[in-house]
Formats: sequence, C-alpha cells, structure tokens
Amino acid sequence: MATTIHVKDYLRRLTGQPVSAIDTPALVVDLDAMDRNLATMAAFADVHRVKLRPHAKMHKSAEIAKLQMAQGAVGVCVQKTSEAEAMVAGGVYNVFITNEVIAPLKLVRIAALTRQVLPHAGRIAICVDSIEGITRLATIMNESRAASGIATEINMFVELNVGHNRCGVEPGAAAVALALEIRKHPALNFTGLQAYHGKAQHLRTPAERRVAIADAIKAVALTRRLLEAEGLKPGLVTGAGTGTVMLEAASGVYGELQAGSYLFMDADYATNHRESGHPKFEHALFVKTQVISTHADQGYVVCDAGHKSHAIDSGMPKVHAFSSRSTLEYFNGGDEHGILKPAEGNTRLPNLGSLLWLIPGHCDPTVNLHDVMIGVRGGLLKGTVERIIRVDARGAIT
Amino acid sequence: MATTIHVKDYLRRLTGQPVSAIDTPALVVDLDAMDRNLATMAAFADVHRVKLRPHAKMHKSAEIAKLQMAQGAVGVCVQKTSEAEAMVAGGVYNVFITNEVIAPLKLVRIAALTRQVLPHAGRIAICVDSIEGITRLATIMNESRAASGIATEINMFVELNVGHNRCGVEPGAAAVALALEIRKHPALNFTGLQAYHGKAQHLRTPAERRVAIADAIKAVALTRRLLEAEGLKPGLVTGAGTGTVMLEAASGVYGELQAGSYLFMDADYATNHRESGHPKFEHALFVKTQVISTHADQGYVVCDAGHKSHAIDSGMPKVHAFSSRSTLEYFNGGDEHGILKPAEGNTRLPNLGSLLWLIPGHCDPTVNLHDVMIGVRGGLLKGTVERIIRVDARGAIT
Repeated sequence: MATTIHVKDYLRRLTGQPVSAIDTPALVVDLDAMDRNLATMAAFADVHRVKLRPHAKMHKSAEIAKLQMAQGAVGVCVQKTSEAEAMVAGGVYNVFITNEVIAPLKLVRIAALTRQVLPHAGRIAICVDSIEGITRLATIMNESRAASGIATEINMFVELNVGHNRCGVEPGAAAVALALEIRKHPALNFTGLQAYHGKAQHLRTPAERRVAIADAIKAVALTRRLLEAEGLKPGLVTGAGTGTVMLEAASGVYGELQAGSYLFMDADYATNHRESGHPKFEHALFVKTQVISTHADQGYVVCDAGHKSHAIDSGMPKVHAFSSRSTLEYFNGGDEHGILKPAEGNTRLPNLGSLLWLIPGHCDPTVNLHDVMIGVRGGLLKGTVERIIRVDARGAIT
Repeated sequence: MATTIHVKDYLRRLTGQPVSAIDTPALVVDLDAMDRNLATMAAFADVHRVKLRPHAKMHKSAEIAKLQMAQGAVGVCVQKTSEAEAMVAGGVYNVFITNEVIAPLKLVRIAALTRQVLPHAGRIAICVDSIEGITRLATIMNESRAASGIATEINMFVELNVGHNRCGVEPGAAAVALALEIRKHPALNFTGLQAYHGKAQHLRTPAERRVAIADAIKAVALTRRLLEAEGLKPGLVTGAGTGTVMLEAASGVYGELQAGSYLFMDADYATNHRESGHPKFEHALFVKTQVISTHADQGYVVCDAGHKSHAIDSGMPKVHAFSSRSTLEYFNGGDEHGILKPAEGNTRLPNLGSLLWLIPGHCDPTVNLHDVMIGVRGGLLKGTVERIIRVDARGAIT
C-alpha cells in the first residue's frame, strides 16, 4: 500500500544496477549465499531420504517457494489461510497450513483452495487439535462439495504438543480420538502427525536440543503405536526446524522436514552451537542501512534502520563485519533509528553516509515488514541487483 | 502486496456490516473514541495557543491526517521521505520530516516534494544536525531549482539533542553554527528548532517527566538566546509527545506540538501516571483476535494474533476487559499466536472461537503491520463497520 510512485519507479530501474544504487534501509538477499543454502538443504534431505516441505512463512514468496520445489521440495508449509492463498495465487499448489483454523469465514476460503489446486494436481493440508475444529471444517467442506459438485478432500494432520506448549493435543489417546473423528468425514483425509518442537530450535547447545527432540520422538512413537492399535495407518510424521533438523532427519520417525530459516539464516539461529553433522548455512538476508547522524564525542552514530526495518522479537540485529576492523554493536533506536557503538574499544566510528549491513535477529517477521527483497548477485560490496523478489504474503495474517 | 483477491473482496463487502463480520486478527479503530481524542487534543492546543502538528508516523493515513487538519492542525510530521510522499500523494501538503536525511537519492525526492506541494500552498520542512546534511540538501535544491526553473524553498529545523541522545546537535553554539550555515543557501529557510525528548514520553511519574522537560526547555532557551545574539530570529520551537504535551504546551517556549499517539493511545502510554491538567485520551486502536486452541487443563488458551499483528517493542498487548470478569494476560506465542492465561486465579478461560480485543503496546509499529484499519462506529461489541481506512504509509521506510 505504501509503495508510492517514486518507490515503484526506483524499483523498476534497480535491476542490473550495482549494489550502491540500493537506497536505505532495504532488505537485500545475497542470492549466491541463498542458492548455496538451497542446495545444501536439498542434498541433506536426499541423504536422509526424508521429504522437504520448507516453511514459506519465512520468505513469504511464491517465487522462492518454486525455487525450493525445483530442488526437490514436495511443497511448502504456511501458518495462515491468507498465506496459503498468496502461495496458490503465485502458482504453488501443494500447501500445508501448519496451524489450527477455527473461524468459519476462513474455513470457507480453505475449502475454496482445495478446489483451486485440483487442476494443478495440488493438495491443501491443515492441522487440527480439537473435535470442534474437525466438525467445523467437515461441515464447510461438505457444503462446498454440495455447492460445487466437486468432491474435494483436504489432508489433515493431528497436531501433537511435543514440548512447544502452544497448540496441539497431548500425545497418545487424545490424538487417536481426533484421528478417529477425522475418519468419519469423507472430505477429510487423516494424513499423519504434526510434531514441531518450536522451542527446541533455539536451545543453544546440541545436548539440550538432543534431549528435547528425543522426547518429541518418544511422544510421536507412542502415538503411532496407539493409532496402529486402533487399526489406523499412522501416516506421515512432519515437523523440524532449522535448529534441530539433523535430529528429526536421523530419527527414523519423521518423514518430512519443515525447516524454513535455513534459507536466509538469522542472527538468532547463528548463536546456536552446531551439532556435528548438522548442515551449515550462511547468512543470506541483510538490511542495508546508512549513517544519518554522527556523535563521535559521545561514542555513537545513528543509522536509518530501526525496528520498522527488522524485527526485534529475537533480539537486535548484528552488524555484518566484512573485515575484523568493523566491529560495531547495534542498539535499539526506535522504529526508524539504530544506535551503533564500537563493540571493542579501538573500533573507529563510521562517517556520515557510511553504509552498513545488518543481519536481522529473526528472518520471518523481518521479511514481513517489507514489500520486496532486493536480490543481489556477486556479493554485497561489488555485486549487482539481479532481481526484485516480491513478498507475496506480506501482512497475510488472517 | 499480500492483499489477495479474497481479502480484497472481503474488505469491499465489510462496510455497513456488524463488528461480528470482521475476521481475525484485524486492526480495528473505535471511531467514536478516536473522534473524542481528536476533539480533546484540538481543544487543548487551542487553550494553550500553540500549533498542533500531529505525528503521522503513528497512523500513517492521509485520511486521518486530513481529519486532524480539519480540526485545526497546521500539518503533520513524518519520520521518512517515503512517508512524506505518501502524505502528499494523499492530499496532505504541509509535511515536516522530523528526521535527518543524508542520502542524495532521497534528497532528490524531497526536492521534488517541495515542487509538488507548491500549487497547494503547501510546505515541506526537514530536520538537520550536520553541516554536511545542509550542504548536501542545498546542492540538490539548487540543482532542482536550475532544472525546473521553480525557486522552491524548504523549511529547516535545527534538531537539538534535548536528552533523547539519538539525533540532534548539542544545544548552544553547535546549533547556532548550523543556523548560520542554513542562512547561506537561498533555497533553505531556517525556521526554528526541533526539540523532541522521546525518552521523556515514557517516564512513568509526572515528577520525572517534569524534570526532563524542564531540562529541554532550558536547552532550548539557551540556544534561542545565542541565536538572537547572532542576529538570527530563533523561529518556532517544535516538539512534544503524548506523554509530556502538557509541559511543552505550558512552557511559553514551544510553539508547536507534535504528539501523535493521543489519537489511538497504546498500552504503554496508558501506564504513565497522568499529570494533573494533562488531557485525557481513550484507547481507540484494537486488534480483534479469537481463540483457536484451548488447553483448560494446562490453564491457557491460544489466540490467532501474534507479533505479526501487533508490535511488541513496548511490551505485550493488554487484553481489553469489557467487564471485570474477563481478566486475561497475554504472553508472547510467536509471530502468529498469543498465549492467554488468567491474570487472576478465578478468571474463566474463554472457549474455542471466543473473540477478544487486544490493546497494542505501541501504536506506530502496530499500524505499520497492517494494510488497513477497520473503522467501527457504535462500540466494539454492537457497532458497525463505518469505513476502511488505508494505511497509506505502511512499510514506508526509505
């Protein structure tokens, strides 16, 4: 909405220009680093013989989702109905809403999506953690079938609480009860278990993460045994994030990985101590900013990127250090400003107009602040703008 | 960008419908409360015989800016060049960029704005805190004059650091040096002093705020005396926010108030202890949300509004209590979820699908997350959607 005529003209002219032509603040993707991350994860999933369904809530871009699928991903995950709509509108037809949807207004939209993806051999999937969630969706799917004359189905994953303590039923009998309920409705297809442990992603040591995911695997295994005892196929187990992906991949239980952040790697994930054998990813997402006010006598400068340019829910951004000289620390300066101070005593403060690159603390909500990502090839210092990547699902919250 | 066809259709049909038709999460303005806040501030500025130039970085809407001007505001403030462009494009022609701008790319756009507002008897103003900032702008204004044949001017405020410790020169001689430099350039018009004390807005007690603003007033008075000693007209002193507006209004030094948050009032400002005589404002901005997952045995429910729906830089949102029964506390559940627990032991947890209203911790960056605000008349429970208010400057960061 904010994209004024000036900004549109500027973006139109930007492709092919050097990095220096990018005004600040701007969200910039290092395409070389992104491509390497893309290939690393595709190879990793191959080696472990698990499916990859990256979480598109991270990049929110149909263009990038299609890049991931071209390298073997079976589809994408999203968190919201409107994100699913943005993906389908952008030509991504295999979409899993890894969240509970209760509002009838949204369930009608989801039913519409199950029809929209049919001609493209696509499939919509969704999570559920309550009987009421199932019956509401079944009612609306049935109405949609009756009205359209098309017998669409939707894939249903029962969400287990494997330690994240947010949505999801407790592992075991409660999950089986939901699977049995799903089976009663012809439009609903019980497909498996959603077992994502969000909190484990940000445990800093491999040992802590191993304990957390071992618990999740136990919870999943128990639930699968109970499902089989009821004569149900336990189906696919799906979950994992960039922090723990090695553990789920090697579990023999998880059949699908949902990691998303690996593609851009944020400052928060970079503080995790790496598990041996865990794939290695590079920072590929940056906020380009510049110094707009200098206060050498007080030991700080001010840049033009505040928390309207990058999310701060997982901490402040890190200042990217191209060389050992440039060790600056970023402090919160409000919506539109950052305060930069030397992280070590002998660092020289940058001059007015100096350009700096920030590594956001958390990719997903950072991307959500921007209409576009500027894709650069050939490095942040001497590279060229290759293309403008639209954030199709920006602001998609319903 | 994210506004898919489904969302557009839904918004088109929403006007005239009851509040219950608003899907969640959604940013909702209580128009009755907003109108009362609007009138209260207009009357306050009148009584104190000061100009009102509300900060539009709060609402980011040209429609609302025009409402403020219809009630006597002389124009609006913005923080970014692209916000100024959004205002001018929306028919708001008196715009003050209360920030330093250094990038030549942006200065060219600002020079263009000075031409665009001319036919509307408008005026662009800007802050400066360095000689280089002045000479860069002067160069580009001169080029613009030469190229267009139109001798436009821009109003320049020297920004003083009155305690916020972000941008701004130190009060006194440094400010005078900048004013003298501005006078050398015919396209630049020295208009006065920007003296905004951001940190003082959120000091909780009246006593603390009084001390902070007394210091700011002293710094301004000193600088004005030095300007006069140099034979310069000291011009207008502009500043103040919703937290301290009473103090600047009564100072006899400030001639213009920049408060913005008064219009919507966020949860953070509501925790300030009110100065006697300070105007009283109501919460007018809410995030409507609903319960999507219940965990009664574990004492919490999950709603569908996370920090993609409301900013958390000033803390978590408060749950609006329509009655004394409904005392729930909001905990961070990530980008798309909120965790709600009883704030008091005996509060009943809401059912699946229950609707709740959150009061955001900080209005400005919350509004920035949304493409539209849904304006409701007649109360949040039984009201009707009167109109959809576009967030014209959403994502305007350059």
